[in-house]
Amino acid sequence: MVKAEDFLFRGLDKMGNTTNAVGSNVTAVNVNQLPGLNTFGISMVRIDYAPWGQNAPHTHPRATEILVVIEGSLLVGFVTSNPDNKLFTKRLEKGDVFVFPEGLIHFQQNVGKGYALAIAALSSQNPGVITIANAVFGSNPDISDDILARAFQVDKKVIDEIQSKF
Amino acid sequence: MVKAEDFLFRGLDKMGNTTNAVGSNVTAVNVNQLPGLNTFGISMVRIDYAPWGQNAPHTHPRATEILVVIEGSLLVGFVTSNPDNKLFTKRLEKGDVFVFPEGLIHFQQNVGKGYALAIAALSSQNPGVITIANAVFGSNPDISDDILARAFQVDKKVIDEIQSKF
Amino acid sequence: MVKAEDFLFRGLDKMGNTTNAVGSNVTAVNVNQLPGLNTFGISMVRIDYAPWGQNAPHTHPRATEILVVIEGSLLVGFVTSNPDNKLFTKRLEKGDVFVFPEGLIHFQQNVGKGYALAIAALSSQNPGVITIANAVFGSNPDISDDILARAFQVDKKVIDEIQSKF
Amino acid sequence: MVKAEDFLFRGLDKMGNTTNAVGSNVTAVNVNQLPGLNTFGISMVRIDYAPWGQNAPHTHPRATEILVVIEGSLLVGFVTSNPDNKLFTKRLEKGDVFVFPEGLIHFQQNVGKGYALAIAALSSQNPGVITIANAVFGSNPDISDDILARAFQVDKKVIDEIQSKF
Amino acid sequence: MVKAEDFLFRGLDKMGNTTNAVGSNVTAVNVNQLPGLNTFGISMVRIDYAPWGQNAPHTHPRATEILVVIEGSLLVGFVTSNPDNKLFTKRLEKGDVFVFPEGLIHFQQNVGKGYALAIAALSSQNPGVITIANAVFGSNPDISDDILARAFQVDKKVIDEIQSKF
Amino acid sequence: MVKAEDFLFRGLDKMGNTTNAVGSNVTAVNVNQLPGLNTFGISMVRIDYAPWGQNAPHTHPRATEILVVIEGSLLVGFVTSNPDNKLFTKRLEKGDVFVFPEGLIHFQQNVGKGYALAIAALSSQNPGVITIANAVFGSNPDISDDILARAFQVDKKVIDEIQSKF
Repeated sequence: MVKAEDFLFRGLDKMGNTTNAVGSNVTAVNVNQLPGLNTFGISMVRIDYAPWGQNAPHTHPRATEILVVIEGSLLVGFVTSNPDNKLFTKRLEKGDVFVFPEGLIHFQQNVGKGYALAIAALSSQNPGVITIANAVFGSNPDISDDILARAFQVDKKVIDEIQSKF
Repeated sequence: MVKAEDFLFRGLDKMGNTTNAVGSNVTAVNVNQLPGLNTFGISMVRIDYAPWGQNAPHTHPRATEILVVIEGSLLVGFVTSNPDNKLFTKRLEKGDVFVFPEGLIHFQQNVGKGYALAIAALSSQNPGVITIANAVFGSNPDISDDILARAFQVDKKVIDEIQSKF
Repeated sequence: MVKAEDFLFRGLDKMGNTTNAVGSNVTAVNVNQLPGLNTFGISMVRIDYAPWGQNAPHTHPRATEILVVIEGSLLVGFVTSNPDNKLFTKRLEKGDVFVFPEGLIHFQQNVGKGYALAIAALSSQNPGVITIANAVFGSNPDISDDILARAFQVDKKVIDEIQSKF
Repeated sequence: MVKAEDFLFRGLDKMGNTTNAVGSNVTAVNVNQLPGLNTFGISMVRIDYAPWGQNAPHTHPRATEILVVIEGSLLVGFVTSNPDNKLFTKRLEKGDVFVFPEGLIHFQQNVGKGYALAIAALSSQNPGVITIANAVFGSNPDISDDILARAFQVDKKVIDEIQSKF
Repeated sequence: MVKAEDFLFRGLDKMGNTTNAVGSNVTAVNVNQLPGLNTFGISMVRIDYAPWGQNAPHTHPRATEILVVIEGSLLVGFVTSNPDNKLFTKRLEKGDVFVFPEGLIHFQQNVGKGYALAIAALSSQNPGVITIANAVFGSNPDISDDILARAFQVDKKVIDEIQSKF
Repeated sequence: MVKAEDFLFRGLDKMGNTTNAVGSNVTAVNVNQLPGLNTFGISMVRIDYAPWGQNAPHTHPRATEILVVIEGSLLVGFVTSNPDNKLFTKRLEKGDVFVFPEGLIHFQQNVGKGYALAIAALSSQNPGVITIANAVFGSNPDISDDILARAFQVDKKVIDEIQSKF
């Protein structure tokens, strides 16, 4: 039996806890939190940024993202695919809207003086998030440092150092 | 040549002019305003509501909508399809998120004391908007009052009266 | 176990009962009546029209419709979305085919002397039907006359009168 | 500039010429005849059958078909894919509706005394038709009889005989 | 619980048994063999060909195919839909890649001296295979020879002869 | 005018040049090389691996990949999305098939004694490739080391070192 509650999620006005390594917090409202989104191809997130906090480079494997700045100033960017790997960046102020195309690596950094806040929507009810640092250097179990040392063309001990942080 | 500007829209922080018959204003950011959205199946709108203003009953022919209240209190609702025509409503406060399923007739009404503001996203880069009153009673040219009188089971002069407003 | 019966529906030759307020009747053959349609993105309807009967303004939230006149003469029309709200109409005779684009408000009216009959197909196995008058003025429970009076820019008593019919 | 004519096709009431080898005729109304169908995923056909005529085994590479008998009696069937190759058949009378799943080989045969008529809809604006006999034995140029003799496990002269008819 | 085994299929290096009427063998790796493919819209096959063996004319009702020759020489072809029924053919050598568009009838024949091997991928996790000879002349139960004789414009005894082989 | 050449690509038997930093080479056959793939949702690649070479961690923003080992032994893996970041790995031998789900970070490493060869197919005619190291540390222009130092939780000089390699 369908009911109005299935279409309602309360509390996106609550600031997330940004006391963490990257200084940001994402509150997701997708099909896991809001069952009424099922099959509808859309979801929403709130992103809080401490001063100089960032939403670290990540991808959404199944969605494009459209983001609007509610408070503060953000430097945003995404990188195109091979062979160009071109970086597109913009400084966004309150009320600016930006698009991160499906599957591309992107990030936001708070470049204002205070806290920043953005609302974003994603073109899937289950978009997924792959934070590059966590997936590459913090997987369970670890990807072998042998593979990563060659992939990133650094010494294994550099890889080990990064892996120790995740 | 793709460039960062294609993915940027500025100015969604500007309050829309709600001095109109229904007391609301929608600022759209879809593929017409933001070409970088092309093929990506998502878009965004800002909705301003004067006190007791409403976003009158309407449908999006090609999109589901997810809405978050940024300021104020809204009564929101949608009606299911035949044969039930069941009305689902909720009173939303700041931070509440609601879903309007694809193609269904829905509305929002400002039920707080001051202005209200919502941000919504739609699951199409070109969702379309059909405001029921405008499409049914204000089309160009008019649908004949003969048809509408029977459809709405009222006298033609009632239809003529409504049509005269649109 | 799939069987031939899953792909068969009998009886679309039976004229529907058009003794009702609008003088028309729709017999649907979608996934609810014909399980073999599941996932296939198509369905069919038979529409009967008493003399001067109409299939009142409605939308299909998930489908485009293609209609062919089997008997009689129909005035058909649809209205485009905002901001144009342009009404497209044609008078159809036996053998004429017309398209109603996905999600747009459309209608047919019998403008011949006798009964009329159309067969239509829809681009979904579960297209849905939203009859505007029923959804807006006959929902369960009612949309408040406060909201509708402002949306349609008439007095509440006009709204109440229409609501009393549905 | 979109106009009402783009959504209109006239003349599907005209009986097709069934004086041909198989005794049937298909009149198509797809995006080639009716440009308003573009991107909408639906189209329509009229099928006429002379007494004992057939719409010979064929597939639609991009569509499911739903068919209703308007006049007469039809034996209809489709064959499932490997490894079962199961034949599903039904005798249809006026008003019966049947589904031919996407891409499967199917056929109709007039098994009544007079002419028969069906209207069918397809889940693509450009469904395509592959008549098995024509594609396999009447392609331009011919598929070599060497290949077909082995595929159908008969002598090349049998293949040559069939190829000579197409 | 998702596990790595769901994404693994072993043994596509094994040559299939080509000792059969057409001299070829298809080893399929689709969602039936490899559950991790579910919803992902892709699958793979290995095709072995004895000298002068063929993968007889067939269609995939839900997929386009891309094929690469690993060993040997193949004559490949597909036939376009009505009304052209145009045959496109190419002789492929090791390393050549060819595309068979969705739903079209196509075939491959080993035209080299030894065994041939191809790997192909299909744009569905459940593409289906309809071998024309088997579906038309070897269905269970048989399509009546009455229908097939007229469809292929030969004597019923020719049909009966072909049917006796399947 | 469609012609057979549009569906043909020659030369996937040629070993790619693996004399590079990661010891692997990808030869792509997508819609850029093979126009007949347009709209068909599939493409193919050949991947060569020098001894101990790797196809470094990367994603395809618009495709799932299915890979078969033609020669050699590969260690393959992919990492699930947040919050689990679970690493799935398997050692593949000749004839083994593996699936890399859409948008997830994955890699292959040659763990045999000689060269290795794989053929893979992707569920898009234009899947895209994002090599993590190149996109994150080798974009044009660079992502600021400020952002990356915090994202990867290492000193800027470590970031600078990695960036200097790309």
